[in-house]
Amino acid sequence: MENSEQSTISNNEEKNAQEIVVLRWGHRPQRDARLTTHVALTARALAASGFLLSDVVDKKMKETIEKVTRNWGGKFFFEMGTAWKSAVKDWKARGGVVVHLTAYGENIETSDVLNRIRRLRKKVMLLVGSQKVPAEFFSDEVSNFNVAVGNQPHSECAALAVFLDRFFEGKELAKEFKKAKIKILPQERGKKTAVEC
Amino acid sequence: MENSEQSTISNNEEKNAQEIVVLRWGHRPQRDARLTTHVALTARALAASGFLLSDVVDKKMKETIEKVTRNWGGKFFFEMGTAWKSAVKDWKARGGVVVHLTAYGENIETSDVLNRIRRLRKKVMLLVGSQKVPAEFFSDEVSNFNVAVGNQPHSECAALAVFLDRFFEGKELAKEFKKAKIKILPQERGKKTAVEC
Repeated sequence: MENSEQSTISNNEEKNAQEIVVLRWGHRPQRDARLTTHVALTARALAASGFLLSDVVDKKMKETIEKVTRNWGGKFFFEMGTAWKSAVKDWKARGGVVVHLTAYGENIETSDVLNRIRRLRKKVMLLVGSQKVPAEFFSDEVSNFNVAVGNQPHSECAALAVFLDRFFEGKELAKEFKKAKIKILPQERGKKTAVEC
Repeated sequence: MENSEQSTISNNEEKNAQEIVVLRWGHRPQRDARLTTHVALTARALAASGFLLSDVVDKKMKETIEKVTRNWGGKFFFEMGTAWKSAVKDWKARGGVVVHLTAYGENIETSDVLNRIRRLRKKVMLLVGSQKVPAEFFSDEVSNFNVAVGNQPHSECAALAVFLDRFFEGKELAKEFKKAKIKILPQERGKKTAVEC
């Protein structure tokens, strides 16, 4: 983890006690490029503070996401290459909690797990798997909570979106993305954007 | 559209006036296989009645989704190959409304668009694009509503998930999937399933 990136996390933490960062595990640059891009863009659009692509380096993806952030505004950090164990350990050492999104966990709708996480008032690292995750992810040494967005197989991208929407109580979709070069002006019909040259 | 599939839609319609089906446009079998699979699995897991892969045939995907449904239960139809225009026309002729998910549309959080859709008490076809969609999608000849899950670029899979979660008010994540061979028993830690042999 580079020092500059480390400081990005710290700055974000100071602003909001219950910020969320997303750690994506198991990315395979060729095979998962589009899906992981969708996961990262979802994290950004739904008001997570940043994205950690653990254990691998994918410069092309970093460029894609940072270009979106430059054009569409807001603050969003993209880190890559850190081993997931160090990232988790570091996060916890700095007072954060770790939430693993998995179909096997406590159901976000039928259990009180979301309230239990919110009540802690701590910053949250969301672990989002890709391929079959290591069994350790389920243990309390890694995850403080295992949360299921329904107990059916579907998509980490969908699970992440619903978690963020519920965690931020919908407000994330009204978030203003500062210093945007492109901005959509929502309408009933057609496509309208404001572009700053 | 085969007759057997047609009748699947009709059966589902009779049960619930505000059912949702998802029409996926612009699927390219090689390039989009995983992403479209995630979209279809999200539709199923979040209680849509079925999925139409418009304009193309992808037998492998059909097999994948139908296998998930056989194993994990519930009713979910998968159709493919119908031209999107016919599917939309047919849906409207049978009293349904069409909702196009697009970042350019009315914001689901800051506008009353979701309530306006709900109040109609009609079955909903959700148009989910992939590549750049035809301009016609935005017109009232095609879409009754253009809805944005936030006005930022992200993922059709994420947008679909948030739309379904809000439309069904979270109840979809507690849905029982009948005749399941595999069932997850949600827990705080570990993976537990009940398997019917």
